[in-house]
Amino acid sequence: MAEQNFDLIVVGGGPGGYVAAIRAAQLKMNVAVVEREHLGGICLNWGCIPTKALLRTSEINHLLHHLDAYGFAAKDVSFDLAKIVDRSRKVAGQLSGGVKHLLKKNKVTVFDGSGRLDGVAGGLRKLKVEKDGKPVADLTAKNIILATGARARQAPGMESDGKLIWTYKDAMVPKELPKSLLVVGSGAIGIEFASFYHNLGVDVTVVEMLDRVLPVEDEEISAFARKSFEKQGMKIRTSATVKDVKKAANSVTATIEGNGKTETITVERVIIAIGIVGNVEGIGLEGTKVKVDRTHVVTDDHLRTDEPGIWAIGDLVGPPWLAHKASHEGVVAVETIAGLHPHVMDVAKIPGCTYCMPQVASVGLTEAKAKAEGYEVKVGRFPYIGNGKAIALGEPEGMIKTVFDAKTGELLGAHMVGAEVTELIQGYVVAKNLESTEKELMETIFPHPTLSEMMHESVLDAYGRVIHF
Amino acid sequence: MAEQNFDLIVVGGGPGGYVAAIRAAQLKMNVAVVEREHLGGICLNWGCIPTKALLRTSEINHLLHHLDAYGFAAKDVSFDLAKIVDRSRKVAGQLSGGVKHLLKKNKVTVFDGSGRLDGVAGGLRKLKVEKDGKPVADLTAKNIILATGARARQAPGMESDGKLIWTYKDAMVPKELPKSLLVVGSGAIGIEFASFYHNLGVDVTVVEMLDRVLPVEDEEISAFARKSFEKQGMKIRTSATVKDVKKAANSVTATIEGNGKTETITVERVIIAIGIVGNVEGIGLEGTKVKVDRTHVVTDDHLRTDEPGIWAIGDLVGPPWLAHKASHEGVVAVETIAGLHPHVMDVAKIPGCTYCMPQVASVGLTEAKAKAEGYEVKVGRFPYIGNGKAIALGEPEGMIKTVFDAKTGELLGAHMVGAEVTELIQGYVVAKNLESTEKELMETIFPHPTLSEMMHESVLDAYGRVIHF
Repeated sequence: MAEQNFDLIVVGGGPGGYVAAIRAAQLKMNVAVVEREHLGGICLNWGCIPTKALLRTSEINHLLHHLDAYGFAAKDVSFDLAKIVDRSRKVAGQLSGGVKHLLKKNKVTVFDGSGRLDGVAGGLRKLKVEKDGKPVADLTAKNIILATGARARQAPGMESDGKLIWTYKDAMVPKELPKSLLVVGSGAIGIEFASFYHNLGVDVTVVEMLDRVLPVEDEEISAFARKSFEKQGMKIRTSATVKDVKKAANSVTATIEGNGKTETITVERVIIAIGIVGNVEGIGLEGTKVKVDRTHVVTDDHLRTDEPGIWAIGDLVGPPWLAHKASHEGVVAVETIAGLHPHVMDVAKIPGCTYCMPQVASVGLTEAKAKAEGYEVKVGRFPYIGNGKAIALGEPEGMIKTVFDAKTGELLGAHMVGAEVTELIQGYVVAKNLESTEKELMETIFPHPTLSEMMHESVLDAYGRVIHF
Repeated sequence: MAEQNFDLIVVGGGPGGYVAAIRAAQLKMNVAVVEREHLGGICLNWGCIPTKALLRTSEINHLLHHLDAYGFAAKDVSFDLAKIVDRSRKVAGQLSGGVKHLLKKNKVTVFDGSGRLDGVAGGLRKLKVEKDGKPVADLTAKNIILATGARARQAPGMESDGKLIWTYKDAMVPKELPKSLLVVGSGAIGIEFASFYHNLGVDVTVVEMLDRVLPVEDEEISAFARKSFEKQGMKIRTSATVKDVKKAANSVTATIEGNGKTETITVERVIIAIGIVGNVEGIGLEGTKVKVDRTHVVTDDHLRTDEPGIWAIGDLVGPPWLAHKASHEGVVAVETIAGLHPHVMDVAKIPGCTYCMPQVASVGLTEAKAKAEGYEVKVGRFPYIGNGKAIALGEPEGMIKTVFDAKTGELLGAHMVGAEVTELIQGYVVAKNLESTEKELMETIFPHPTLSEMMHESVLDAYGRVIHF
């Protein structure tokens, strides 16, 4: 097979890989992308995007059961699960097609198959592309970016079977609604599915090993979210683990241990959401200097591995496992390859969002982490109930918390729970990127009437100047 | 009547006045607010807040007529206008009560009546408070802030009668839905009511004197919004004026002239929304040095009038007529009185929002204005159809436009139309307040999947680096 040469090969066409490829094409490189399954990756096909379509429908379901509060009436409200899932798949399909189009427009060559590093020849990195065990192409390039992503971590003894025990993929395309559901793990993925299924009327129990849900979030936000979930009727067990599962024809009986108690519950389905592991296998890392640490490839802050010419980005290189982090890493790697001097990623400036009801979003240090790092802090809080737009929308549940360095006024972190916070957080991210102190945020005129006014009030509150509370 | 002395008196309890009073109380002043009608002012009682409650219901109505697209079904969908209006009034009532509570908590004394300047005695400004022609109190203070707001401008020959010809107040509490409606004026207020009534099924015609709707917005955004309104079925006449109205028992026949044509239409109701005039009458400006220019009080950039000790803020001092501008002016005036050195207001950093469907929001210079001011510009655009979250939400209509100074990279303006833009605009406002260039905005990691990613893409587009289009 004749070798084909490129300036850059990207292995993996997810939000890290395809964005890297487009940026490289903009910088006049001749680029190939090797993707074994779907352009757009897990995020677009089985993650962020289709779940957001599902969550939109669960929000609509919630609204349809509270119409009277808004002056509306309707009879025989119902939903068709097949249509809901189909809409979500169509959205994913439309966007995956969009990525294909974007790559074509940018003259990126796409290979359908799995890529495996295959040594060096004449100063060029070699990559073999195979599909179903058959060779597809032999490629060479001066630089190769690995962006093979990650997959769901399996729980020993509770391996997903696609029928009774689900991963996120199964959970995204249910054929029928289970009557009851156990979600193991309360990170973003677990909580989003718990919220989605609960809103459609499923009896949901969440089990979390740590002492609170959404454990990466600020403790107050975790507590607020938990209270809200429980008020809605979700069952939550923290500091608890699933010790044993017994499968029956159409149910699973799980033994949950925690807080010195043992509890047995029987549910129709189980979702395992206990984290992800990097896809480091089968990509030819053996015999290279690429270091792997607990399933993740180790890189420097410009995304170089220890093997010359080999770069790695996205979920493959570890947390935070977020599409927007992967995309920016792709840009940083490509610009470094191109001899530019891109900014280095700072994890404190990467926002995280969870699309449950109420939504959760944050950026930077939690109050506890800021204190642990030795900061003397000023903390501001503002509740949704004090905001006119929240009242007008009928969304009075939520809060916005800000953490400042008491000495310098630097915005260390922002933590939000409530309607639309996933769209609001960007203002604080912009502020952190511009190294804002409380002063500039206080002087910023947030428009009225908006939820975003609470972002202002929370800052004012940290300095004893809150107006509406 | 014994005189009561305060450090500061604020005449008018709207978003300018009550915020000024609370800020003054925080700065240890002994403060009085004089309000003749409702605490919270027009904004809270007859403006921003109750209209947002109404618009929320019109969005719900829209959704209920598109349920099938999301996999839902319902029969006999209906609404009860009285309940919708009642909800809106309750929201206003709740928030007005909230302002009363806030003032009490801050130990601000509230007088129920109209305030009138009454000269100087012993270095103190005097103010008479009256209610229904009867004296309520005689007050003195070293400083008085006038925050009496504004009212709807009347159109000669089309004066509102509360029955056939409405102001915004009448339009907010309809007893029944008219079959057809003529809206005169396509600024924010006119367009919001046009959108609300249209979404509830009313046949709406908008007449605008200038050559485009929402004439303060960027021309592309105006054009986009108009196209969207017309696609929804709204009728729009620009470069047109209403020359004559003839009232019948339950209808109005209007003669519209424009573009060399004369058209006659008969509608059940007319809303006049051709701007506002300042409430400068009856507050004792006669015999003071306070200057009035076209119904608005003239101040310096710290909100001082030409009369010592007399300050003015909010709608009374002129455009932009926005609650958030009034509140910030209140803070600037009070901090100046207290001897602090507050930032001066910069109109280029004040966002404007219109809550129609699709929503419109902007900050800073339009492309045309930037060019008129001599800037060489770089312009970025990104369409909602290129955004994953917009597709997942079922909201593919909209665009985000950014305008940069080509020489320095300074963000000059941002202009948005589409779902949730009123909540998104704050990120650009924060950026403008921190004097961001394109570089910091490009380096900012907007979370995925959100509508806010389009804010990033629009910036990238201005510099030939857009990813998803």
